[in-house]
Amino acid sequence: MMCGACSNENAFKQCFMAYRNRERCPPGSFTEEEKTSCMTNCPPGSPDLTILSFQNAFHGRTLATLSATHSKAIHKLDMVAFKWPMARFPQYCYPLDEFKCKNSEEDEKCLAQVEDILCQYKKGNRPVAGIIIEPIQSEGGNNEASPCFFQKLQKLAKQYGAGLIIDEVQTGCGASGKMWCHEHFNLECPPDIVTFAKKMQISGYFHTEEMTAKETYRIFNTWMGDPGKVLLLEAILKVIQKDNLLCLVQKTGQKLKCGLLELEREFCFLLDSTRGIGTLLAVNCTTPQLRDEILKCLKQKGIQCGGSGTRSIRLRPALILQEQHADIFLDRFRSVLQCIK
Amino acid sequence: MMCGACSNENAFKQCFMAYRNRERCPPGSFTEEEKTSCMTNCPPGSPDLTILSFQNAFHGRTLATLSATHSKAIHKLDMVAFKWPMARFPQYCYPLDEFKCKNSEEDEKCLAQVEDILCQYKKGNRPVAGIIIEPIQSEGGNNEASPCFFQKLQKLAKQYGAGLIIDEVQTGCGASGKMWCHEHFNLECPPDIVTFAKKMQISGYFHTEEMTAKETYRIFNTWMGDPGKVLLLEAILKVIQKDNLLCLVQKTGQKLKCGLLELEREFCFLLDSTRGIGTLLAVNCTTPQLRDEILKCLKQKGIQCGGSGTRSIRLRPALILQEQHADIFLDRFRSVLQCIK
Repeated sequence: MMCGACSNENAFKQCFMAYRNRERCPPGSFTEEEKTSCMTNCPPGSPDLTILSFQNAFHGRTLATLSATHSKAIHKLDMVAFKWPMARFPQYCYPLDEFKCKNSEEDEKCLAQVEDILCQYKKGNRPVAGIIIEPIQSEGGNNEASPCFFQKLQKLAKQYGAGLIIDEVQTGCGASGKMWCHEHFNLECPPDIVTFAKKMQISGYFHTEEMTAKETYRIFNTWMGDPGKVLLLEAILKVIQKDNLLCLVQKTGQKLKCGLLELEREFCFLLDSTRGIGTLLAVNCTTPQLRDEILKCLKQKGIQCGGSGTRSIRLRPALILQEQHADIFLDRFRSVLQCIK
Repeated sequence: MMCGACSNENAFKQCFMAYRNRERCPPGSFTEEEKTSCMTNCPPGSPDLTILSFQNAFHGRTLATLSATHSKAIHKLDMVAFKWPMARFPQYCYPLDEFKCKNSEEDEKCLAQVEDILCQYKKGNRPVAGIIIEPIQSEGGNNEASPCFFQKLQKLAKQYGAGLIIDEVQTGCGASGKMWCHEHFNLECPPDIVTFAKKMQISGYFHTEEMTAKETYRIFNTWMGDPGKVLLLEAILKVIQKDNLLCLVQKTGQKLKCGLLELEREFCFLLDSTRGIGTLLAVNCTTPQLRDEILKCLKQKGIQCGGSGTRSIRLRPALILQEQHADIFLDRFRSVLQCIK
């Protein structure tokens, strides 16, 4: 594939094929009615299947992935969308240790909504063929969900025959301290599909054996990949191994997170909710205006940092960031906060 | 953009924005209801606009472009689709000179259907915001339509406020003997959008001033292009100019077309309907089986040639094909036909 959106588009297609194929006997036996009706976008050939996504999710800006994206109105205004369902993504209180019980209730509330949608849409003959989710919602505000949430989500997906797509476009390739962020979740078995792009140089997805289409050419484009980019990826993977960058990310991430927590204590009227895994970190500012002001001041001190969600500062450093770089960042962040204070 | 499908996806988005913006007073003033409803894929924020496409068209395999694609069932089976309308694409009798009257009737029949759809969908509150069409339907069988058909189609599009998207992904960048195939149609004014990819190394689209969105970031991706490919394109464009390749395509194309017409006369029980512009040429075989047999024999003689539609042989040589290469092809094609005869 060519970009994150394309990977997700094709992951959706893979889910539709797998879902319909399980309904067929024998698999792969298309009826004449299916072959004719699909040519004019009508069922049964073009079935009314759906993809379940989450509030604040970002999965791309092609029309189908945009139908599963719910982060900013300006992305979606005026765009024709599939009428696909959306569930609540857990919103935790921080620090996690202090709010274990409340956050666990939040998980259950969100999972109950997921189950309700899976059930209602099945009854309404618009079954959910795929569930797409980010391991950490990036564009939507660096929102994380617990391993327990993901484990239970996977069980629900299996129970209702929906493919579970983990969108690792932003979180994949090491920034969580593991190659894939979902490795932190101790899932019972691998997700049905894992999509990737960005740091990976090329984009695409892994999928389980059961998701494989029986026929050739059903997932295909004439472009057929960019060999030059595969060479780049190979070199990058070698450096990740040789320089033990996953370990470095864990160390630097730990240093950054501790530093952010310290700043949060020191400037508790400005910052809250430090969160994340590896270097996929974020902290909230009290208001969106304060966030924008801090980002501006950081830039003036040579720190390029992005916002996400309504009031988060999101860290997305390169894998080569070392502990001494974390110190530089934390020092300059502190001096910005002192000025604002 | 990254590929032909992405270009067309974003061209659709541009049409939706332009259509909705014309309905707004002042333009760009989104209502609170629009901002809220779009987040759950509901109107009015996610409006029920449509894209009109043509029978046998191919515009890509992401879900939205696939909804505008109608060439092969295997591309579309099991895929969720937008319920967008499809009109008949002209199917001409050959040679064109002999069937002027009949083919002109065919144009009118197709245009009447287009107008009927534009009218019905407007009445049904699912207005057509964009019409997408290939200058020569490539994947669908190298089907051409007359300049007159395209001129009238443009008028209809303007009359009903639909953007006209000319998909030059396969036909663009010189193979018609002009840089863009639609330049052969003497349109009254430029098409609203022209999409490109493939030979262009990068993909994207040109559009008219009126199609421009007032707000920033509405068409956007984080990838932001591949500068290396722009350098490749620059070098290719220089060669096209320096070696006068458009002129060469015209000459070689003429030679190829004359040769095909000669073969068609010689083997009238095997071949018919030679057609096309520049080197975007094709000829029909009597049956799909015969077509596949001929392609196999050509391959054995060192000629890599593709099929399209149900029984067409489609020529898509590189721009550097010279008249002596055309002679080699025609000679080997003749010897294959002689063997089959």
